[in-house]
Parts: sequence; C-alpha cells; structure tokens
Amino acid sequence: MPVQMGLRRIIISEIHEQQVIMLKEVEGDRSFSIQIGLFEASSIDRKIKRIPSPRPLTHDLLAAAIESLGGELQDIIINELKEKTYFARLRVRQNGEITEIDCRPSDAIALAVTCNTPIYVAEEVLEDLSEG
Amino acid sequence: MPVQMGLRRIIISEIHEQQVIMLKEVEGDRSFSIQIGLFEASSIDRKIKRIPSPRPLTHDLLAAAIESLGGELQDIIINELKEKTYFARLRVRQNGEITEIDCRPSDAIALAVTCNTPIYVAEEVLEDLSEG
Repeated sequence: MPVQMGLRRIIISEIHEQQVIMLKEVEGDRSFSIQIGLFEASSIDRKIKRIPSPRPLTHDLLAAAIESLGGELQDIIINELKEKTYFARLRVRQNGEITEIDCRPSDAIALAVTCNTPIYVAEEVLEDLSEG
Repeated sequence: MPVQMGLRRIIISEIHEQQVIMLKEVEGDRSFSIQIGLFEASSIDRKIKRIPSPRPLTHDLLAAAIESLGGELQDIIINELKEKTYFARLRVRQNGEITEIDCRPSDAIALAVTCNTPIYVAEEVLEDLSEG
C-alpha cells in the first residue's frame, strides 16, 4: 500500500548545488529526505509560499498541458529506490483511465504542490530506507 | 503569416541571472534575442549538444506527458510582444484538433528543441522589433 506523505521542510542553500526536501508520513512518524536541484526546490518553495509569478513557470505549464489535453493529475508516487536514486510517477486520469508517467521525484512533488494533489511513497521505499 | 526561426546562439553567463538566446529567420536575415532564465537556457543547451541525462528532466517530462495523453507537439509560436515581454504558445495536435497552450518563450523553445519541432514567430512580433 502506498503511504501518503506531506511536505515537511525544504532546505535551500545557495552555496550547494543540491537542495534538500523532507517528506513525512501524514498518519505516522516515518520521514525521509531527497536531494533535488535548485530549480525544482525553488519552484516548490514558490508554490508553498504562494509567491505569484507573472508568467506560467515550467511546472505551471506542465499542469496546464495536462489539463488542456483532458487529463487530471490524481496523485504522484515515489515508487522505487534503486542505487540511491528515487524514481517517481505521475498518475493522470484521462477519459476514466489512469496513465502513469515516469519522472524524477522533484518534478513529481513540484507538480503535486502546483495541482494540490496527494504525494504517496511506496511502502517498499520506506522499508528500504529503514533497513539502510 | 508566422515566420519560421532557427536557434542561432545561446549565451550562457554564470555571472548574470538572465541568459540570452538568439533566433534567426530560416529563410531570411531578421533575428532577435530573448532573455531567459539559466535553467531554461541550460535545458536548451543540453538538448542541442545532445548531452544525455540519466533521468528525464522537466522539459523531457513535459514532452512525455503530452505524448502519454495522446498529444503531439506540432510547433511553437512566439505570438506576442507586450511591454517588452514575449508570449508564446505550444500548438499540440490531439485527436485531429489543435490545442494551444500559453507559455513563456523559453519553455516553448526548450520543448521545441526536445521534440524537434519548428519554432515560429508571428510577423507582427518581428515588425514590432524593427520599429523599436
């Protein structure tokens, strides 16, 4: 069963290339952090702080493109951890069917925050973390 | 009539926030440059140099999302210049119809380069430039 997670913290450092995002279980205490790029971290940060943008930014455009093509983001899931790299999928509903689109967790989370949809993590990913 | 443009040059400066992209008419000599962000400039630069990425980057994800939802990018057009800001549209074919999606020229060009589709500029935009 996928576990719903909430965004707990974004740590943006202008010194380092990689930024850190922390997710925490909605109905529990397990948490984990992912390293993401500055662009994706800034995009997520802007959304959370509701900083308006005069023009649609790249993740806004992604959301608009999905909607324009008759799709609706249902949720996103971080579904795999392989050799220290996380993998994610967008789950988009279109004509009553779910299409899954492979992506990086950072883009998935930025889109989930843009569209206000849930963020899930596969149970196996959380278990792999506790074993590591 | 929209005028087809080719990407002539990308100037990436690590000192300045804004980068510059130059477009030139395919069948003529008119050209113009647009200031874009570092993220979009890097994304375009990677595509042109065919630098492979281990994971789909944000513009790859945008291309994958359009394709997964049954769309096909036909072309992009920089269709307006208003108060020194350029506006663009993606033209996506889906079920035989064209859907136009508003975006920034930088995202439009990055996507056109990713999908290998033509870049157009509205004649009025080129005329506005020569008058300015």
